[in-house]
Amino acid sequence: MQQIPLRDFSSYLFDLDGTIYVGGKALNGAAETIKALQEQMKTTMFATNTTLYTREEVRDKLAGFGISCKTEEVITALSVAGMYFRDFATGSKVFLLGGEAMEEEMSRFGIAVTGEARQATHVLVGLDRSFDFDKMTTVVNAVRNGTQLVGANPDPFCPVEEGVIPDTWAFIKAIETASGVPVGVTLGKPTKYYASYALKQLRNSPDKCLMVGDRLDTDIALGKSIGMHTALVLTGVDSRESIPRAGIHPDYVCTSIKDIL
Amino acid sequence: MQQIPLRDFSSYLFDLDGTIYVGGKALNGAAETIKALQEQMKTTMFATNTTLYTREEVRDKLAGFGISCKTEEVITALSVAGMYFRDFATGSKVFLLGGEAMEEEMSRFGIAVTGEARQATHVLVGLDRSFDFDKMTTVVNAVRNGTQLVGANPDPFCPVEEGVIPDTWAFIKAIETASGVPVGVTLGKPTKYYASYALKQLRNSPDKCLMVGDRLDTDIALGKSIGMHTALVLTGVDSRESIPRAGIHPDYVCTSIKDIL
Repeated sequence: MQQIPLRDFSSYLFDLDGTIYVGGKALNGAAETIKALQEQMKTTMFATNTTLYTREEVRDKLAGFGISCKTEEVITALSVAGMYFRDFATGSKVFLLGGEAMEEEMSRFGIAVTGEARQATHVLVGLDRSFDFDKMTTVVNAVRNGTQLVGANPDPFCPVEEGVIPDTWAFIKAIETASGVPVGVTLGKPTKYYASYALKQLRNSPDKCLMVGDRLDTDIALGKSIGMHTALVLTGVDSRESIPRAGIHPDYVCTSIKDIL
Repeated sequence: MQQIPLRDFSSYLFDLDGTIYVGGKALNGAAETIKALQEQMKTTMFATNTTLYTREEVRDKLAGFGISCKTEEVITALSVAGMYFRDFATGSKVFLLGGEAMEEEMSRFGIAVTGEARQATHVLVGLDRSFDFDKMTTVVNAVRNGTQLVGANPDPFCPVEEGVIPDTWAFIKAIETASGVPVGVTLGKPTKYYASYALKQLRNSPDKCLMVGDRLDTDIALGKSIGMHTALVLTGVDSRESIPRAGIHPDYVCTSIKDIL
């Protein structure tokens, strides 16, 4: 079967870190590639698992790299969480383990939040720099008493310049262990929640969409799970050698995002 | 085979919480039973997984219940850790995730400690009320760089009046998850380290010893692992019904510690 040329899709869903930028620097050719696609009236959207930034902040960061997009063209773990509570947990009251961006996105989606974990229907866990023993104890006891544990994404750590910082999944494992109660719902790439919201936002049939990312287990797995075409870029975490190991096979392997043009 | 009468062993190893006291109160008959055994010149020792108290503090707590013992007759997860570093990790330099008692016990065993996780050969993890994001990040990066993760015990939580507080294993899971590095060594009941140190302190052959405790998976498992006789007391966590579920079969089941006499 002949492959569709990479430039011939009508919608593109781009991962960010490792695909468009690395750390604080845009990857060579990323802005040009996206601009060219946008000039051809293609849909371009951006998919991240971050829980540290609002969609506006992500949009502004991309603007800083010369990439223009609307807020609605950005999907984050937090916006998926907002949609999840709105659509699947009506009337929920959420205790937040996360920062300001989490609070802001919940408010955008009209989700009620509470500072009292015991009164919460759900605890939403993201990367929480203010995580400590007392907060952990509060959440653990709430979860034992029926509050549902929700992971904003399944990421164990987040790479930073000096190494890593703990991410959502590390907090989830701590809470699961101390409470004896397993996580109720996990959002973020590559879960079905994230995938179906992404597809809804793209307003296109999946076979017309290309998912572009540097990670097999999140980006490529997500695209494949909803029947998108998938392209692995070699500018981030995974290499060609990772493919047989992961057993996740992208339709395309590109040196970088520039290969799309 | 006829069972040895409970009072006819020459050495007794008692769990504390759920066996001798519950919360802040001695169980009915505990002090009398132990006193009677001591008057018969039996060896009595006390085995806890706590990382919050030194052996002296445990001894003083027992004294408050009318139970007299020497410091050397108390075994805690921290004293086992001290012996572990002394005997199996000579020259180690340990970063501590725990409170003052941990520091004090390490000093008793002559173990070098450091406040710099990156310079540590090991991180010893216990119940740490000052656990927070920054401490977790420091330890996670040290572990990624080769510092060995040591769990003082495998306890996921510690029961308190208002519910539970997170214990050692919750912190271990968080660190394992964020670092991608599995725990190197686990001490505490029911591990082989704890068991063999206990037996050494008892200075007796295991078939002359009775392990008495309220938990199958820690106390009874520990006793059985080194060939002691074992007695489950029904004043704590486990019931008769727990036995087939756990698949751990004590030699005796007692209503309480009083049955020993």
